[in-house]
Amino acid sequence: MTATPDAPRGGWTWLERILSRRIRIGRLTVLGPGPRRSVFGAVPLDAPRLDVVVRLKDYRTAWKIAFRPDLYVGQAYMDATLTIEQGRLEDLLEIGLRNSGGPPRWNLLARGLRALQHRLQQANSGERARRNVVAHYDLSDVLYFNFLDSDKQYSCAYFETPEISLEEAQEAKKAHIAAKLLLRPGQRVLDIGCGWGGLALTLARVGQGQVTGITLSAEQLAVARRRAEIAELDHRVGFALEDYRALRGQFDRIVSVGMFEHVGTPYYQAFFDKIARLLTEDGVAVIHSIGRMDGPGVTSAWIRKYIFPGGYVPALSEVLPAVERAGLWVTDIEILRLHYAETLRHWRERFTANLDVIRTKYGDRFCRMWLFYLTASEMSFRHDGLMVFQLQLARSVDAVPLTRDYITAREPAPEARLAAIASA
Amino acid sequence: MTATPDAPRGGWTWLERILSRRIRIGRLTVLGPGPRRSVFGAVPLDAPRLDVVVRLKDYRTAWKIAFRPDLYVGQAYMDATLTIEQGRLEDLLEIGLRNSGGPPRWNLLARGLRALQHRLQQANSGERARRNVVAHYDLSDVLYFNFLDSDKQYSCAYFETPEISLEEAQEAKKAHIAAKLLLRPGQRVLDIGCGWGGLALTLARVGQGQVTGITLSAEQLAVARRRAEIAELDHRVGFALEDYRALRGQFDRIVSVGMFEHVGTPYYQAFFDKIARLLTEDGVAVIHSIGRMDGPGVTSAWIRKYIFPGGYVPALSEVLPAVERAGLWVTDIEILRLHYAETLRHWRERFTANLDVIRTKYGDRFCRMWLFYLTASEMSFRHDGLMVFQLQLARSVDAVPLTRDYITAREPAPEARLAAIASA
Repeated sequence: MTATPDAPRGGWTWLERILSRRIRIGRLTVLGPGPRRSVFGAVPLDAPRLDVVVRLKDYRTAWKIAFRPDLYVGQAYMDATLTIEQGRLEDLLEIGLRNSGGPPRWNLLARGLRALQHRLQQANSGERARRNVVAHYDLSDVLYFNFLDSDKQYSCAYFETPEISLEEAQEAKKAHIAAKLLLRPGQRVLDIGCGWGGLALTLARVGQGQVTGITLSAEQLAVARRRAEIAELDHRVGFALEDYRALRGQFDRIVSVGMFEHVGTPYYQAFFDKIARLLTEDGVAVIHSIGRMDGPGVTSAWIRKYIFPGGYVPALSEVLPAVERAGLWVTDIEILRLHYAETLRHWRERFTANLDVIRTKYGDRFCRMWLFYLTASEMSFRHDGLMVFQLQLARSVDAVPLTRDYITAREPAPEARLAAIASA
Repeated sequence: MTATPDAPRGGWTWLERILSRRIRIGRLTVLGPGPRRSVFGAVPLDAPRLDVVVRLKDYRTAWKIAFRPDLYVGQAYMDATLTIEQGRLEDLLEIGLRNSGGPPRWNLLARGLRALQHRLQQANSGERARRNVVAHYDLSDVLYFNFLDSDKQYSCAYFETPEISLEEAQEAKKAHIAAKLLLRPGQRVLDIGCGWGGLALTLARVGQGQVTGITLSAEQLAVARRRAEIAELDHRVGFALEDYRALRGQFDRIVSVGMFEHVGTPYYQAFFDKIARLLTEDGVAVIHSIGRMDGPGVTSAWIRKYIFPGGYVPALSEVLPAVERAGLWVTDIEILRLHYAETLRHWRERFTANLDVIRTKYGDRFCRMWLFYLTASEMSFRHDGLMVFQLQLARSVDAVPLTRDYITAREPAPEARLAAIASA
């Protein structure tokens, strides 16, 4: 094996200069090749855990991180050219996010590039949408079923208190959405982006209607269909491998959880126009998606490259113009803030507990990549303005009751949800 | 008295052509000068009340209405050059709104003019803001106190059911807002656009904090101060004649009900930047405003000329960019749809019941103007996409609890509100 010559030492100096300007909260010690060691910031009295020591394997890694931290911190962690010698990954990422000082000041060229990048990222034709989905969701069950809850909810749970279990919080999420959908027996219900079918099955059970779930992932479809059979609900729940743009017909209720992140801004108008066309005159829809509180942004280069090709987290100001032009009523907007951070914490803990099984199938680098993804996402919900919004939409002014009290009234009490988990 | 020569008959023909193309829902019979009589549309089986006969005094009125219905229907009603011979004003307006067929298709010139008009309407410097407020809110108490509820709430009430009284619904509105504000004893609370002080007094009573209410109307200020004295709350509630832009200091809670409609789109950023500066790190704000569901629009020319100079009803898509740029968290958005229609119905009924008193002071034409305003507004909430939004805002991700359950939990039960009304 031939050693690759390292990059010049300039990268180290550059990185030192950036970190010494940035790090104000927490202490970051960076060990470099040979005897190099630099300390930035100070340990806060109220958060002694924010004291992290990392080692960079070579000058090349320093160069890359100084150049594009949003891409190369994650990549170096995956490649183990950045290793953590003291402290935890979550603390390293917290130090990074809390010292980012808001959106950087770009010069005019960078702004232009950013806008271009924003547009390019969003191209999402039917074929590319399918490829993007396959890349992420067709990973084998060995991965997902080793960190998700027993119902395979791969989206933000609903924590009435942070103490409840992930199972209970996912059950609460489904109950919360079902309540907002005001289900009645006999209704036609559509689930766009149905995943492994858990929500569709619950809606069929709760609402006694006819549920259609669509996905672009063949792996998810097979699991969802098998589950419907096992639950003896296949006469009331149908699943299909289909793009929402190809759907025909009308539905009394439409739900979409964790799919809107893949739609792409140039397709927002088509998406909501389609919802308006698919919805009956007195219909109700609930769209549940990750959002950002600080206005339009750019997806992290690392996330885009390794986790969600084509993914984008919108600000509400990017979503609402399309809803308004589609002639839809926004009848409610709920903003779930720390719920996804709690969900991701549970996923990370379960992932870590099942690390051996996952490592056997996917290897070390994949595990580090996935841990970085789960941890970075959690920290973004805690410290970088990510949230989840639930848009409730309708075509008629009186499609939902006068006040929101019906939501709580229609949710089963916590004990009833626990019973549902036990019997599922 | 010399008779003014009438306009040529062409106006009648023009109006006939427009109405015969437009009227599809309901029947409108128009009687003109001399024997002229034209019937448009048909009476719907499910709404026999939509059968209205109006008389136009002269051809000039027909011309004007054909040319600019949004300005001249109201003006002709005020001037009694348009009179209703069969049916009610609300039915006439419902026929008008339900046959408007959504936003009209403008040609390019009209679009340009509309955009210009939109900008011009929104100029709202400190001095103009004061003049606009004086024009509407300094009308004497004889007007307002003859149609508002006993607490003088000149904004949308909260109807848990349509059957409750206006007094109860206004009490419920204040309780709902107080619950969203998560009041604690000792907090500094700011009410921007405090009206006659009812909300500020309630918040001081409920929250046991120090409340500051500001208004630009000297009439409202005097009444609010008197009420604080009578209620023996003047040690905890202060009122001032002040523009929000001139405020200094910090507040734990900020509320603004029915004032945002006067801010003007060019000032939205300044408004939310100011909210962000006035709010403490763990503070919470609630902004309650009329909105429209169908995207940016133009205020009716009649409303702007006679009722609210400088007023504008925004779409959420116009408001959220400024909130996001101000770095504020949107922690909840509630959309109240038919509540203002119910409120306006109550106001109109009370106004009509007290018509003699009001007419003695203001005269016939003013009463017709005001009735047209109340009725047109009610019908716009029922049939033309108007709503009320309550934005809850914060600076920190954890300023409000994880779920919205605290809102209902903090609202007193209906019986407790009835007791509050009785003892007020």
